Amino acid sequence: MSELRRDPIGGRWVIVNTDDPMKPGDYDHDAPKTGKNAACPFCYGNEAQTPPEITALRDPSTPANSPGWQVRVIPNKFPALQIEGELDRRGLGIYDLSNGIGAHELIIESPYHEKDLSDLTIQELTSVIHFYCQRSLDLERDHRFKYIMIFKNYGASAGASLEHPHSQIIALPMVPKNVKEEITGAQNYFEYRERCIFCDMIRQELQEKERLIMDNKNFFAFCPFVSRFPFEIWVMPKKHTGYFNQIPYEVIGDLAMILKGIVGKVKKIFGDTSYNFIIHTSPINSDGATVDSYHWHLEFMPKLTRVAGFEWGTGFYIVPTPPEIAAKYLREAQPD
Amino acid sequence: MSELRRDPIGGRWVIVNTDDPMKPGDYDHDAPKTGKNAACPFCYGNEAQTPPEITALRDPSTPANSPGWQVRVIPNKFPALQIEGELDRRGLGIYDLSNGIGAHELIIESPYHEKDLSDLTIQELTSVIHFYCQRSLDLERDHRFKYIMIFKNYGASAGASLEHPHSQIIALPMVPKNVKEEITGAQNYFEYRERCIFCDMIRQELQEKERLIMDNKNFFAFCPFVSRFPFEIWVMPKKHTGYFNQIPYEVIGDLAMILKGIVGKVKKIFGDTSYNFIIHTSPINSDGATVDSYHWHLEFMPKLTRVAGFEWGTGFYIVPTPPEIAAKYLREAQPD
Repeated sequence: MSELRRDPIGGRWVIVNTDDPMKPGDYDHDAPKTGKNAACPFCYGNEAQTPPEITALRDPSTPANSPGWQVRVIPNKFPALQIEGELDRRGLGIYDLSNGIGAHELIIESPYHEKDLSDLTIQELTSVIHFYCQRSLDLERDHRFKYIMIFKNYGASAGASLEHPHSQIIALPMVPKNVKEEITGAQNYFEYRERCIFCDMIRQELQEKERLIMDNKNFFAFCPFVSRFPFEIWVMPKKHTGYFNQIPYEVIGDLAMILKGIVGKVKKIFGDTSYNFIIHTSPINSDGATVDSYHWHLEFMPKLTRVAGFEWGTGFYIVPTPPEIAAKYLREAQPD
Repeated sequence: MSELRRDPIGGRWVIVNTDDPMKPGDYDHDAPKTGKNAACPFCYGNEAQTPPEITALRDPSTPANSPGWQVRVIPNKFPALQIEGELDRRGLGIYDLSNGIGAHELIIESPYHEKDLSDLTIQELTSVIHFYCQRSLDLERDHRFKYIMIFKNYGASAGASLEHPHSQIIALPMVPKNVKEEITGAQNYFEYRERCIFCDMIRQELQEKERLIMDNKNFFAFCPFVSRFPFEIWVMPKKHTGYFNQIPYEVIGDLAMILKGIVGKVKKIFGDTSYNFIIHTSPINSDGATVDSYHWHLEFMPKLTRVAGFEWGTGFYIVPTPPEIAAKYLREAQPD
């Protein structure tokens, strides 16, 4: 018999196939094509093809928008939202709308077209994550923005339109619905128990160890009890922290180690595969209640299945591999 | 500049590219492979390969589970949820779970492997929809079920694992989160204005006509102002009705005509393309407040784009073709 599991934060139910779990080899997923592409605007020497860089980690002797960089941050050439203008909220009959104001930047993680996160050194990956924080801190000073979302799409099935590995950062003029729901769920739990639900989750996961993948002093990775996708992974700071961008510089290395580790493990099991990750953090200028009850974390989802009508309609996900079994595969996988 | 639009029911924001809208030819989508497959368990003559039929529309001279049928309803051989047993809700530390109890049936819409909904006659499609109602009414008599979901996945990108056109019906032991949210949103509006939000939407759409695709006496189809996907289409009964399965037999033909029409129009524009549709209806035994404020409808989504990390993380969808423009293409498309 399968199991129905309820997300203690948002109340979502998922169906977990505990009866006849799918093994890694049973998934039929696309491999992201990666091969050097002379025309790639994110490769060395093609810097002029992108909008001028916002910031970069580069050899101090090299000028902006030329080779010599290690990480490069640029505005998205085709932004989902535009930086200039005012929001201008208005009605249209029963509907509400406003102008598409926001920021949309890309973080090119490496000059090398073929290098994904797991191929970077801990030091290189630390620089990438440090840029996430820096850009987030800078963008949140704009009074029009309410939320900063950092995420990565890797591979076409995960929605990436360019092969060259990059992350994205979007500043939004309103707190997105999914984030609001998560925050409300965490606050309800906090009001009831006077404890952070994520901290309780950490305690249970580190004690039970069944869904644990890896950990170090400051971070740990596990397959959540209520995974929506097979081999879904969450990375969490062990210490309660509401804001991602307040991560102290000296612990970023620990996060880089876990992130490199999980991407490497997923690739060891599935080969080069598409994935998404998203950093979930508190809205800008959250009040004390949110900061006490919300715990930032990173949600990582390999793209192994396709979401069908049932999932769209219900928010009821079907998970073919239970997280306990996925975690075992991931624990045992040793990246080369 | 793009537009931010807010869903008046659930509060979700979407980004609509009103600036530089994508045209139908710009979408790169998969065509569902369809070609007669001798081994297809849903084709004529292969009836023994499926579990025994629950019901069928067939020539009265033919025995069950043999050729001679027009529509055939069977239990899913690989059900997401199992019909036998009790729910047995329980806790596990901070988590909640229960047994995977439910029903999962398939409605084979035609004996012909290549015939999709738009290829059926109005009379044939009416029989299919009539079976949706019949099965839904039968399943809701089981006291363990709280919600009946009827949906269709067409094509592999839409999550279909078998090519032969079929719809699905799932009976769930709890009301799914997305449905709950929609109902709460509609109730809030009703409490504030003492009117059904869907009825208000119908009035505005039929008056403005900008997003209208087609209509007849009892139903109409339009591209919702807050579409989450390009060329998303909603079909709604013009008269307020909380439950899909209470649709009078004599108006099913009007629904069949609209459904055949929109599938035909989408295929005229995009060629044979993957899609999902889902029937949104009130939970079983809803109270009067829900029945007054909730209005059943069908949501139809052609699979033209892939959902990326940003959408997953935020519930903030990016819509490359504004619904006003999509509706114009759909209005003008004349299926062969």
